[in-house]
Amino acid sequence: MNDTIKTILEHRSIRKFTDQSIDPSTLETILKAAANGSTMGNMQLYSIIVTQDKEKMKEMAPLHFNQPIATNAPLILTFCADFNRFNTYCSYRDAETTAYNNFQSYHWAVIDAIIAAQNACVAAESLGLGICWLGTITYNADKFINSFNLPKSVVPVACISFGYPAETPELTDKLPLEALVHYETYQDYSEERINQLFEEKENHPTTQNLLKENDLPNLARIFTEKRYKKADNEYFATVLTNVLKEQGFLS
Amino acid sequence: MNDTIKTILEHRSIRKFTDQSIDPSTLETILKAAANGSTMGNMQLYSIIVTQDKEKMKEMAPLHFNQPIATNAPLILTFCADFNRFNTYCSYRDAETTAYNNFQSYHWAVIDAIIAAQNACVAAESLGLGICWLGTITYNADKFINSFNLPKSVVPVACISFGYPAETPELTDKLPLEALVHYETYQDYSEERINQLFEEKENHPTTQNLLKENDLPNLARIFTEKRYKKADNEYFATVLTNVLKEQGFLS
Repeated sequence: MNDTIKTILEHRSIRKFTDQSIDPSTLETILKAAANGSTMGNMQLYSIIVTQDKEKMKEMAPLHFNQPIATNAPLILTFCADFNRFNTYCSYRDAETTAYNNFQSYHWAVIDAIIAAQNACVAAESLGLGICWLGTITYNADKFINSFNLPKSVVPVACISFGYPAETPELTDKLPLEALVHYETYQDYSEERINQLFEEKENHPTTQNLLKENDLPNLARIFTEKRYKKADNEYFATVLTNVLKEQGFLS
Repeated sequence: MNDTIKTILEHRSIRKFTDQSIDPSTLETILKAAANGSTMGNMQLYSIIVTQDKEKMKEMAPLHFNQPIATNAPLILTFCADFNRFNTYCSYRDAETTAYNNFQSYHWAVIDAIIAAQNACVAAESLGLGICWLGTITYNADKFINSFNLPKSVVPVACISFGYPAETPELTDKLPLEALVHYETYQDYSEERINQLFEEKENHPTTQNLLKENDLPNLARIFTEKRYKKADNEYFATVLTNVLKEQGFLS
């Protein structure tokens, strides 16, 4: 197994960091790695916002629902789907400036931004850093837009904390590979197959502890009744849809 | 520079492959790498469809606008945003099955799928393979859904050809890193700054050749008048929006 595969297979989210700061050359390497991913038509439809200022982290903490990981890291990178730079370029070259004000173009930019973000994560982990994604970035996209002063055609889509690990958690329990992979066409899941594929996860100590803590009979209901509830998801879906309208990607 | 950083910084799209097939253990390593990325709440909201059958590739070629790269590769992986597996799991555990039929949940699944896809790419490149993303997957998402027999709550979002490189193209011309990175808050782009940031790209031989070929005065207009035109983008935006409605992610 080569070092890259090893880095990827040993990934786990890190939520506690040491006090060690990330030196500028390490940051530059991470950013260069981010900037060398595949990108739609070589347009590079993303921007990366570097947060190192602790005051800025504290200001944004409530938007991340005050998760400790949003303030205890020496570095946070926020990846934005960004058509503003390209549209601005078009405006100074006598080219159509509204060609990319649509949902398909937004989708390209999201993909570009996530490719860049994952490259940054793998690069950072190969250098001994730990990372943790903050899903809250799209929940409160409207508020982050204000906080970062993002213009139209820019939407924050990924936010990741980086630092040197002060913990070594177990690898997360995952579904078996066969649960995720389909050959040639999609094979839908029967009850028997669901039972078989989720068995290990359901019996995992992590799950068993969660069931006790939450007094619920199974993992599915922890998700639907505690973690990501229908009403909350629908509320945040409205926020995100409105953001896309406001930023010019949805009519 | 470690091997992982080197792999990432040497990435370029490969569009010509040798006849060498990808052996099952290499494919398994790539899939395992894909499956170990960060994922929203550890839900693993993606599926991976493996295409190795040449007849299937030929059948889908028109949906990829007959790009040679869609049929000349030994392996194509299609990454789908997938809430079907999780919703099906919920249905067999007496849990709410419609909590994730919304745009925010779709967004989580897209991000999960792209993280998995980029992990697969980096892993494959570390093993000496070349890769090329096929943006056509979201243009014709409706037709790919039929071709792969995808159920509701599944949308194909990334499609990547893999093979051993039969070419070594130059690294692609990119914007300077400073064009992409903002510190603490977003700095919008003035005309002077756009000129400065795009100068190298505009003077690059690749761009100069494109201008001659297309008889157009600048790179911006090659994009807006030849490559990705407003009317086409808007048409494909409608296709994608309808797909999200049809698959249950948008009302």
